[in-house]
Amino acid sequence: MTDPEVRVRLPDWVAEVAPLGGMYRSDEARIRLAVTLARENVRRGTGGPFGAAIFEEESGRLVSVGVNSVVRLNNATLHAEMVAFMTAQAALGNWSLGAPGLPAHTLATSCEPCAMCLGAVLWSGVSRVLTGASREDATRLGFDEGPVFPESYRYLESRGIRFDRQVLRAEAVTVLEEYRRQGGVVYNG
Amino acid sequence: MTDPEVRVRLPDWVAEVAPLGGMYRSDEARIRLAVTLARENVRRGTGGPFGAAIFEEESGRLVSVGVNSVVRLNNATLHAEMVAFMTAQAALGNWSLGAPGLPAHTLATSCEPCAMCLGAVLWSGVSRVLTGASREDATRLGFDEGPVFPESYRYLESRGIRFDRQVLRAEAVTVLEEYRRQGGVVYNG
Repeated sequence: MTDPEVRVRLPDWVAEVAPLGGMYRSDEARIRLAVTLARENVRRGTGGPFGAAIFEEESGRLVSVGVNSVVRLNNATLHAEMVAFMTAQAALGNWSLGAPGLPAHTLATSCEPCAMCLGAVLWSGVSRVLTGASREDATRLGFDEGPVFPESYRYLESRGIRFDRQVLRAEAVTVLEEYRRQGGVVYNG
Repeated sequence: MTDPEVRVRLPDWVAEVAPLGGMYRSDEARIRLAVTLARENVRRGTGGPFGAAIFEEESGRLVSVGVNSVVRLNNATLHAEMVAFMTAQAALGNWSLGAPGLPAHTLATSCEPCAMCLGAVLWSGVSRVLTGASREDATRLGFDEGPVFPESYRYLESRGIRFDRQVLRAEAVTVLEEYRRQGGVVYNG
């Protein structure tokens, strides 16, 4: 047996819906893109109801996107945020989006990150995080978010990461509801 | 701009040091393999001082391994545990190592998982976790472990995951110390 190579690739439709390099100047525009990616991921049958995107903080330039790819790629780590981090770092050729010489980066995610993704936020080098639906919204619809506590957010804030939560929350929740109505797999319920 | 494909591959030496399919019957043998992978990763200059491996719980058959690959692959998410989860799921063609019909799986990791990796434990489907060095050992040597609290472990235990911590701890700590003496990059300090 040899060690397999793991490949992480976005579905083809993503490049049409969210062309990299586009400009998203407001917080609402950035979250709306994450929610759109979540919704399209459900409607096109490519994964769970979660989307994320990374922007240059000042200019609003779109650097990378992610959609939940757990079931599509047989990989439990591929939540939307993780895919967005990996592809941003691959595009920039750097393991930190906060490296010297790079502009500051913001993550927008359609739902508050699970424990894994919140940990990854800390290592990713982003300096700001925008979230749509809340942990409670996800939990009510059957998704476990793992061991995230109020002090988890304080830990990241103490390291200089700023959070703005529940941006366009109602719009973000509609995607979770649509997925549940369709009977989508709750891969971590 | 097109979305890049991300490839996750182990260094070539790994297949020699830890051939898949080998049998590791005791907890000590399983942790020793994780520690050996951590040490070789440092000595061969392929990454940070962390190693992990996944075994079938009953038989002890080695299913996958991981070494820290953050700097080598420009990807902040590629801690040793994450690489081991991804490659195990790729090998089994399943996003859960706890799926019906599969044997139970154990993760052995040379150091207590950071917040991201502890979250990923929950989604991975492993039912048991063995750890070597402690969070305090890692922190003393400059590695941040992120927002992990006693209640984080209780959360996972309440979902049926068993932990045995500080197996061969002293041996595991020597690898962290060797890395620091060499002046290795602390990519998340």
